[in-house]
Amino acid sequence: MRLTHVRVVGTGLLGTSIGLALSRKGIGVSLDDISPTAMALARDMGAGAVSTRTLGDPGVVIVAAPPDVAAQVVAQELASWPEAVVTDVASVKASVLTRLQAIVPPEQLRRYVGSHPMAGRERSGAVAARPDLFQGRTWVVCPCEDSTQQATEAVCQVAVLAGATAVVMDASEHDTAVAAVSHLPQVAASLVAARLRDVPEDAVALAGQGVRDVTRIAASDPLLWTQILAGNAAALLPVVEQLAHDLDQVRLALASVVTDAAADGPAAGARGVLAHAIAEGQLGHARIPGKHGAPPTAYATLVVVLPDRPGSLARLFADVGEADINLEDLRIEHAGGAPVGLAELSVLPASADRLRAALESAGWAVHD
Amino acid sequence: MRLTHVRVVGTGLLGTSIGLALSRKGIGVSLDDISPTAMALARDMGAGAVSTRTLGDPGVVIVAAPPDVAAQVVAQELASWPEAVVTDVASVKASVLTRLQAIVPPEQLRRYVGSHPMAGRERSGAVAARPDLFQGRTWVVCPCEDSTQQATEAVCQVAVLAGATAVVMDASEHDTAVAAVSHLPQVAASLVAARLRDVPEDAVALAGQGVRDVTRIAASDPLLWTQILAGNAAALLPVVEQLAHDLDQVRLALASVVTDAAADGPAAGARGVLAHAIAEGQLGHARIPGKHGAPPTAYATLVVVLPDRPGSLARLFADVGEADINLEDLRIEHAGGAPVGLAELSVLPASADRLRAALESAGWAVHD
Repeated sequence: MRLTHVRVVGTGLLGTSIGLALSRKGIGVSLDDISPTAMALARDMGAGAVSTRTLGDPGVVIVAAPPDVAAQVVAQELASWPEAVVTDVASVKASVLTRLQAIVPPEQLRRYVGSHPMAGRERSGAVAARPDLFQGRTWVVCPCEDSTQQATEAVCQVAVLAGATAVVMDASEHDTAVAAVSHLPQVAASLVAARLRDVPEDAVALAGQGVRDVTRIAASDPLLWTQILAGNAAALLPVVEQLAHDLDQVRLALASVVTDAAADGPAAGARGVLAHAIAEGQLGHARIPGKHGAPPTAYATLVVVLPDRPGSLARLFADVGEADINLEDLRIEHAGGAPVGLAELSVLPASADRLRAALESAGWAVHD
Repeated sequence: MRLTHVRVVGTGLLGTSIGLALSRKGIGVSLDDISPTAMALARDMGAGAVSTRTLGDPGVVIVAAPPDVAAQVVAQELASWPEAVVTDVASVKASVLTRLQAIVPPEQLRRYVGSHPMAGRERSGAVAARPDLFQGRTWVVCPCEDSTQQATEAVCQVAVLAGATAVVMDASEHDTAVAAVSHLPQVAASLVAARLRDVPEDAVALAGQGVRDVTRIAASDPLLWTQILAGNAAALLPVVEQLAHDLDQVRLALASVVTDAAADGPAAGARGVLAHAIAEGQLGHARIPGKHGAPPTAYATLVVVLPDRPGSLARLFADVGEADINLEDLRIEHAGGAPVGLAELSVLPASADRLRAALESAGWAVHD
């Protein structure tokens, strides 16, 4: 199917960003929003046109309305445009589908395919929109039982045109996944940030990069997130229960350290619980794929001290090249004004010893 | 006191970074570590010298050993260098002091001042050290009852020479503060990351920037963090208890949404609990000071659509300047290839209307 006209309903962060991205690809985009102000801002930003007369009927309608009205708006659009494929971009999929199934006849559902672009910002509204919001991101496409293959392909096409990678999975699989990788982190970030309310000014002043990162998404919109959390309650509940259980173990361990310290005991079991909690987190964190979506691989790492002289790095590369070993990854630690830098070379474990020998014989200081 | 020789005991991330920073300032640094390998790496990186004969006795000794041995090493150093001021850089302060008070005579404690540079990385060891690690960071200095004023000043001097800002507070005040702004975020990050262990590959692949930020510090060292959490158990326990309580409220609210959805009820109270949790997080997050340590201030924000033509921004600045209004903050949202950008202008609330009028009369599209 050749897409010439996409209708975007809802010109918030996602709707406007979609409009910007598709317009850049030369696709006709028409915009609609219940707020004329929001629509005017999106238009001024170049996300699309407000009048659609010249564009004809839309081939695809994208409903970018808040999660709690998404099903209703999708139903209206399916009825208004009897030829169009309709998708929504709500962050929860099973609850939208369940509601739709209650209000839309099955033959209309052939043209419905849910979707969820995994892109967002802690800021909302058209004002935060960007045409490259979806670049390199995953856009989950969730056909329902009734969706036609053609409808699914049209939604995948929109995702790809917007710069994303389309991944097809079913709605409940999606909801279970985002409960762990998106909704639980949001709950944790908000609850940790809330603890800062009770803390004196001097203490908040000690906030470093760690707490800033952990709580960055706590700046998100409460109204939107209430809808998301409530909309995904069934999938989120078991993960929250598990987190509550794990937190309780930490709480008991800390209580036991406090008691044992008073009794001057060793609290060895309690320390084991704390170490286990941090170690499990390390293992879970290691599962997050690398920047380019590649699975994390265990490489051997050599650290080479790099004198801060012109040409050091070029000389190092020449010596690595001469050893005929493929570098899998490279990081340079080089702070301004430091007398030396460090190059961290990652290679396949089988090549590490050979590389070390080659570099040492070329005069480099090599560390593990 | 003029510092000529600082002894650093423990050449991990902090010790080596301190050595690098002080060496750059022309201060003689001598290094010591129970691991000759770690010490050699720190020396090769330029953090200091291994032999101290030419430097004479140290004026200040910095103990950068793991928290659970910090007190013991401080005691040894106080005994070995009867003229030196000794500090440690462990992330917990009251428990180190309590142990020290049990093993060191009060007259030696006159030369002890605890401290905690609020800088770290999720990577550890000399290999991750950088001379600018403390630049712009806070370095908490915790004199005990016995510390002399001169000793406190010497430790503050080291902090400032390393590029940090010295903040004096007492040990228990410090421990309460870091429980909320550092240790609780670590616990939450680790527990959330641990949940990713159970998730199928397809689901982990959906990880976006949110979960990456929330769990970044989950990559931290379990051994070190077990010592920190156990060492600060007394101050951390009440904050963990409060978090557990808040998480339980969320859990009950989700359970009630699930039940009510089955019964087709409204679950309004439950949604209120969820909204409250996210809103409290937003308020707590807003307390984190800005990058330059300035307290967050509520400015009025105007958004100006910026055509992607050479000179747009210069023209905007000229128009703002002509209106004689001081810009408090400015953010440009400008994605590559976008047809327009957005300039977000923050001004004092009293100036907002005047600025809007001036810009609109100059032909700019201004949005709230």
